[in-house]
Amino acid sequence: MSDIRSLALACRDAAPAVAMLDTEAKRSLLRDMASSLGRRTATILEANALDMRAASEKGLQGAMLDRLKLDEGRVADIAQALREVAELSDPVGMVTRREVRPSGIVVERVRIPLGVVAMIYEARPNVTADAAALCLMAGNAVILRGGSEAIHSNRAIAAALHEALESHGLPQAVVTLVEDLRRETMVELLQLTDIVDLAIPRGGEGLIRFVTEHARVPVIKHYKGVCHLYVDRAADPLLALDLLVDGKTSRPGVCNALETLLVHRDAAAEFLPLAAAALKKRRVEMRGDDATRALVPCASQASDDDYAAEFLDLILAVRVVDSLDEAIAHIRRYGSDHTEVIATRDEAAARRFVQSLRSAVVMVNASSRFSDGGQIGLGAEIGISTTRLHAYGPMGAESLTIERFVVHGDGQIRHPESHVG
Amino acid sequence: MSDIRSLALACRDAAPAVAMLDTEAKRSLLRDMASSLGRRTATILEANALDMRAASEKGLQGAMLDRLKLDEGRVADIAQALREVAELSDPVGMVTRREVRPSGIVVERVRIPLGVVAMIYEARPNVTADAAALCLMAGNAVILRGGSEAIHSNRAIAAALHEALESHGLPQAVVTLVEDLRRETMVELLQLTDIVDLAIPRGGEGLIRFVTEHARVPVIKHYKGVCHLYVDRAADPLLALDLLVDGKTSRPGVCNALETLLVHRDAAAEFLPLAAAALKKRRVEMRGDDATRALVPCASQASDDDYAAEFLDLILAVRVVDSLDEAIAHIRRYGSDHTEVIATRDEAAARRFVQSLRSAVVMVNASSRFSDGGQIGLGAEIGISTTRLHAYGPMGAESLTIERFVVHGDGQIRHPESHVG
Repeated sequence: MSDIRSLALACRDAAPAVAMLDTEAKRSLLRDMASSLGRRTATILEANALDMRAASEKGLQGAMLDRLKLDEGRVADIAQALREVAELSDPVGMVTRREVRPSGIVVERVRIPLGVVAMIYEARPNVTADAAALCLMAGNAVILRGGSEAIHSNRAIAAALHEALESHGLPQAVVTLVEDLRRETMVELLQLTDIVDLAIPRGGEGLIRFVTEHARVPVIKHYKGVCHLYVDRAADPLLALDLLVDGKTSRPGVCNALETLLVHRDAAAEFLPLAAAALKKRRVEMRGDDATRALVPCASQASDDDYAAEFLDLILAVRVVDSLDEAIAHIRRYGSDHTEVIATRDEAAARRFVQSLRSAVVMVNASSRFSDGGQIGLGAEIGISTTRLHAYGPMGAESLTIERFVVHGDGQIRHPESHVG
Repeated sequence: MSDIRSLALACRDAAPAVAMLDTEAKRSLLRDMASSLGRRTATILEANALDMRAASEKGLQGAMLDRLKLDEGRVADIAQALREVAELSDPVGMVTRREVRPSGIVVERVRIPLGVVAMIYEARPNVTADAAALCLMAGNAVILRGGSEAIHSNRAIAAALHEALESHGLPQAVVTLVEDLRRETMVELLQLTDIVDLAIPRGGEGLIRFVTEHARVPVIKHYKGVCHLYVDRAADPLLALDLLVDGKTSRPGVCNALETLLVHRDAAAEFLPLAAAALKKRRVEMRGDDATRALVPCASQASDDDYAAEFLDLILAVRVVDSLDEAIAHIRRYGSDHTEVIATRDEAAARRFVQSLRSAVVMVNASSRFSDGGQIGLGAEIGISTTRLHAYGPMGAESLTIERFVVHGDGQIRHPESHVG
């Protein structure tokens, strides 16, 4: 048996131990994990220094290095995040529906854990703790396959989690860190259909494509966010301006940031100059079509690629549209099914926008930046699914469980002729 | 562009037409499809006769031929099934949760269609109409890839469905029948990740393995049912006997039939002779372990393979266990996550059985034969999922939709410094 298979099997065999934990036991475990991380801060920072040194030697750049870097404050944040997951409501055992059928059987839908979740991720070492915590709160065992650039940090964080598991008498295998980071080993992991119930890739487009291409186990993708703001003819211009500035500039590097602004022709003459002034102050580059450039001379020419781009930067693609339907058609063509926003006072237009688009999150008069597990009411998120299956949009602990059927009867049978007694 | 790609693209492009239909329009469409099937009965039977002739020439056997065969009654049944789907509640647009967040945004979870569903199936021509109807009721477009042995029947049924689509002004592509039945074409279909949202294989183990192996789109498997009845020490023997006879003999060829009986040692001496007598009368062959054979001399020796088998026939594997935990361990080892039953008067034992097993359906004192979309309250089913993702157990129209987030605000932003006006 290959090493990765036996590692994964041990994780699967350990999974019932966490599936059977009650809510208080899980909360206590997560709090102890947080304490363990706190106590081991120095060790974790030493390990992280090794990763940082190797990364600089490899020539990694600013943002990449920043994602990798830990300091005392960041370790404390990771521990705090575990304490917050410990406060979430426990989805396991939740009875979502109950019905007495004509036969007399009582049918309940009850949430159970998925089983074994494989997280495939890149530089950020906090994912090691965050993903483990959410998986455990939902009663799952987890296989963590992080990036090679963070291996020392991930190992130190996993050791802290294992210490807490041990003190709770739980098998360490319920949080399994993969240390063999060869691509072929990842491919093998992604094909263990009898062991892994779900793979969640988090990272750049390259990683997600690789996972989708090679996985035989189910995958929920967390893909790019090409988020749109459509400013309708009936929009309140100042409200729309707030949504634009918040969506584009409050944190341009995240997936729920705005990338494209669509403006109704009737609103463009008033709105676009206002927008250009506000964005210029915040150093946002605008790339527009001809109609935009006629109103905003400083905007450069937008290409087709700009409309499909997730800039993750202070760049905004802009287009003037003739109608709501043209805005919808644009989003259908260029969108990534993540988050779209309409600014309008016209309820019929809002309804049409919502119903015509099948993105995971659609907002009416609210910032795209609310498309986030915490903001939307999930407490914490393991990512934002753009796969239209199982979970769509921000995924919390509940999305790491599945509804099954529990039926209670008092001897009901389907065919009376089966009755013996 | 390949033929199958352009066929699938046409289906995807037509999908919004059905996604936007309101409930009454869908119901009327399905009723007209039923009428169209009725009017075309003679044509459908002629087409079916071609399939039957080819099948006999190929030497197809009894049960296979029976699955393929249509007659006036069966066509009427197919039409009736469409009328029943038309009565289901419409999952599309259903608001499942609503919450006002501290920020003031109102977050709703609203069901939308998946988009494009590909059904991959074998001999039964009724699946062509059944699957199309459930997919349409859930607002999806559907690509139907049936077996070559039923191609004439499937074509005639699809023509009837298309007639109704046309009379409703809907594009025929929302129900797309694949007529190129080469394996490589199916593989290509299963890899159209930008077009197909979900593939559902229904058929034998070979088909399901093939689909799982080659698909890059998400797959929900409808795998075998190795269903267990565990007769606890605290079982009512006559109640347990009813469950056994109903589960094993009322329709042995279906996936929710019982395949294995586990009996607690303390109940075996009373229960097994009763069971043997009742089963003998119904010509069921018993294959047991030594303890079983000591009590039931006519039982043959069970092999390890017998405990893993889905007999789909009048054969029952039997084992005497020392405890509830041994029964649970047996089911974990040999089960297929489909349906398990416990007969007991001991509530604590029932609870432990339910919580320790992660099968899609767990029954307490009720027949495994209730593990069926109609019986369990879904109205109709597109299959019974043994994939622990998205849907688990009987899948109805609701399982062909997904919850997404719709957010209403009045200008909320995340960062106050974004406020411009």
